[in-house]
Amino acid sequence: TVTKKLLVLPGDGIGPEVMREVAKVVSWMERTRGIRFEIEEDLVGGASLAVHGTPIRDEVIAKARAADAVLFGSVGDPRWAHVGFDRRPEVAILKLRSELELFANLRPAQVFEALADASTLKPEVVAGLDIMIVRETVGGIYFGEPRGIETLADGTRRGINTEVYTTPEIERVARVAFELARKRGNRVCSVEKCNVMESGLLWKEVVTDLHAREYPDVTLSHMLADNCAMQLVRNPRQFDVIVTGNLFGDLLSDLASMLTGSLGMLPSATLGPVAADGRRAALYEPIHGSAPDIAGTGQANPLAQILSFAMLLRYSLDRGDDADLIERAVADVLASGLRTPDIMSEGKARVGTATMGDAVVQAL
Amino acid sequence: TVTKKLLVLPGDGIGPEVMREVAKVVSWMERTRGIRFEIEEDLVGGASLAVHGTPIRDEVIAKARAADAVLFGSVGDPRWAHVGFDRRPEVAILKLRSELELFANLRPAQVFEALADASTLKPEVVAGLDIMIVRETVGGIYFGEPRGIETLADGTRRGINTEVYTTPEIERVARVAFELARKRGNRVCSVEKCNVMESGLLWKEVVTDLHAREYPDVTLSHMLADNCAMQLVRNPRQFDVIVTGNLFGDLLSDLASMLTGSLGMLPSATLGPVAADGRRAALYEPIHGSAPDIAGTGQANPLAQILSFAMLLRYSLDRGDDADLIERAVADVLASGLRTPDIMSEGKARVGTATMGDAVVQAL
Ligand SMILES: CC(C)[C@H](C(=O)O)[C@@H](O)C(=O)O
Ligand SMILES: CC(C)[C@H](C(=O)O)[C@@H](O)C(=O)O
Repeated sequence: TVTKKLLVLPGDGIGPEVMREVAKVVSWMERTRGIRFEIEEDLVGGASLAVHGTPIRDEVIAKARAADAVLFGSVGDPRWAHVGFDRRPEVAILKLRSELELFANLRPAQVFEALADASTLKPEVVAGLDIMIVRETVGGIYFGEPRGIETLADGTRRGINTEVYTTPEIERVARVAFELARKRGNRVCSVEKCNVMESGLLWKEVVTDLHAREYPDVTLSHMLADNCAMQLVRNPRQFDVIVTGNLFGDLLSDLASMLTGSLGMLPSATLGPVAADGRRAALYEPIHGSAPDIAGTGQANPLAQILSFAMLLRYSLDRGDDADLIERAVADVLASGLRTPDIMSEGKARVGTATMGDAVVQAL
Repeated sequence: TVTKKLLVLPGDGIGPEVMREVAKVVSWMERTRGIRFEIEEDLVGGASLAVHGTPIRDEVIAKARAADAVLFGSVGDPRWAHVGFDRRPEVAILKLRSELELFANLRPAQVFEALADASTLKPEVVAGLDIMIVRETVGGIYFGEPRGIETLADGTRRGINTEVYTTPEIERVARVAFELARKRGNRVCSVEKCNVMESGLLWKEVVTDLHAREYPDVTLSHMLADNCAMQLVRNPRQFDVIVTGNLFGDLLSDLASMLTGSLGMLPSATLGPVAADGRRAALYEPIHGSAPDIAGTGQANPLAQILSFAMLLRYSLDRGDDADLIERAVADVLASGLRTPDIMSEGKARVGTATMGDAVVQAL
């Protein structure tokens, strides 16, 4: 029996509720799949602010570094709007990404077969949709300096943020995209706004050069971010892998996941560089947020969190078979007709968080 | 008979072709509506590069200043990719916006009744959709300094752009949004990314203060840009007026127009400040781009350009009645079943650019 160390960070809103359902899958695995998890749990976001006065403690960052992988819920809580920009709940995820150098955020946008009718798009436009967005997550305007709000002599205030991308930052995330594409549809679309931004111009150049040098077998195309937003609505199935910067990736990946009608079902992985000893920091989280409006009602969909755990098994623990089992169990549960309230798809029964989690374990 | 001075800038790709159809509407107006247009035409974008070696001459900017309004086609031509960032065709529109201080870009996203089936979204999600996006267009990351690409000592290159928004810049565009909302559904949604960017934080604060001070009768909400991208897909009819910065506005307005399935039919207006003498610089252009792939084939849809002219009549010449006539004629032509190839909607006849333009004049 192998033992793996996980850091579990449920966070705010529905985070703790959906994380409880993952615990059921974890104990099923320990019972049947010859693996032991050494799990540490800690507070982040508003939950950490309430107890420790900070959205994330250095100690938690250290634990994240020491773990084999981090399973993250979600952060964000309107009740903490008053604490100020530097201590807002979102700092927890931003700091984890930057401190652990988690630079490649993998966001699949997939239409589940049983839920082809859940999308607001016509079924013939989205059936079978399977896009992988690779979003850069430690650079760009999220982290560039200078930044802040300054007051000029005449009382006018200026808000400033800086978008910065360097050649190595662009190269390493593009490399992840090309590697993924080789295992999928072999096509990468690189997205920037090179007709307006020099950082986008550099992005396009670096991706083009890397492609010519190392990935000539992959089909590469380039698209402006505004056009990409349109094309995702017009004909989303034209895409295989999309690679883009932090800010465009934020909008485009949320847009792409909403196309599937299955926002409550989509996981993500955020990967760091591979270290000399082969270790790779990684964090797994649902695409959805903390959904404070439904927190505590027992209605949240736990599937995105469960599928994030499946991604963790696949990418961090090299247990693709176990991931397959979980993904198949989720598909079975959906096919059997269970639906949490967020799923806009006809089904046989509306169920809550716990019932959905139990059903997955049952299907396993 | 009044005389009005227009500067017509067809630009690249399909620009000149669709502009030719506007000329038909213009001469119909001169024949029947007691108005004379003094029209100057000039080159911009790749068309100007080819003749003058620059995407826009100072002389053209001066003419734009002197005109009652500017009717713009579109710029952008992949054949001019080699000229370098400072001379690319897009500089034409960016310079017109900044030199004339055209800070408020009004982009309606409307579903035409006859084309409710043209959207990739389900008809029940988009029927009757009528959103007005107000996008700031002379500030933000499009124009902020410092910007550029620099090479560091170790050979690494860095691409840099700067997002800057000041209190007065935010206030004046928010004011346009609130004023418009009062004539429509009385709701404004302000969109930024205040959980990540200080410029977004300032944006939100300024809009909130202005609302409390001067527009308490309008319903104001705030939304993060990534959530807005999702909500536009999930339930676009929740929006009335959206106000946002330059970059988010670029993506979100293209997304919103694609929801309607009528990209080739959507116009836009970009307005400057009202001067002491009551004059207001303004530019009208279709949402769609230069579409180099279909340029010269006679297949382009001229309706967005014609409707941009209608917007010009309404906003710059105070001739709302004439604008109504043109908009009604366009609706009639669509109802009669004519369709250019871009329209994904069942119709009676597929027609080209000129036939569509003639049909509009016929309907008038
Ligand atoms: C919570 C927030 C800081 C975060 C982001 O903007 O990256 C979220 O929207 C996401 O996409 O993971
Ligand atoms: C042509 C380009 C510079 C422009 C922009 O990004 O503003 C266009 O996409 C638009 O939206 O008008």
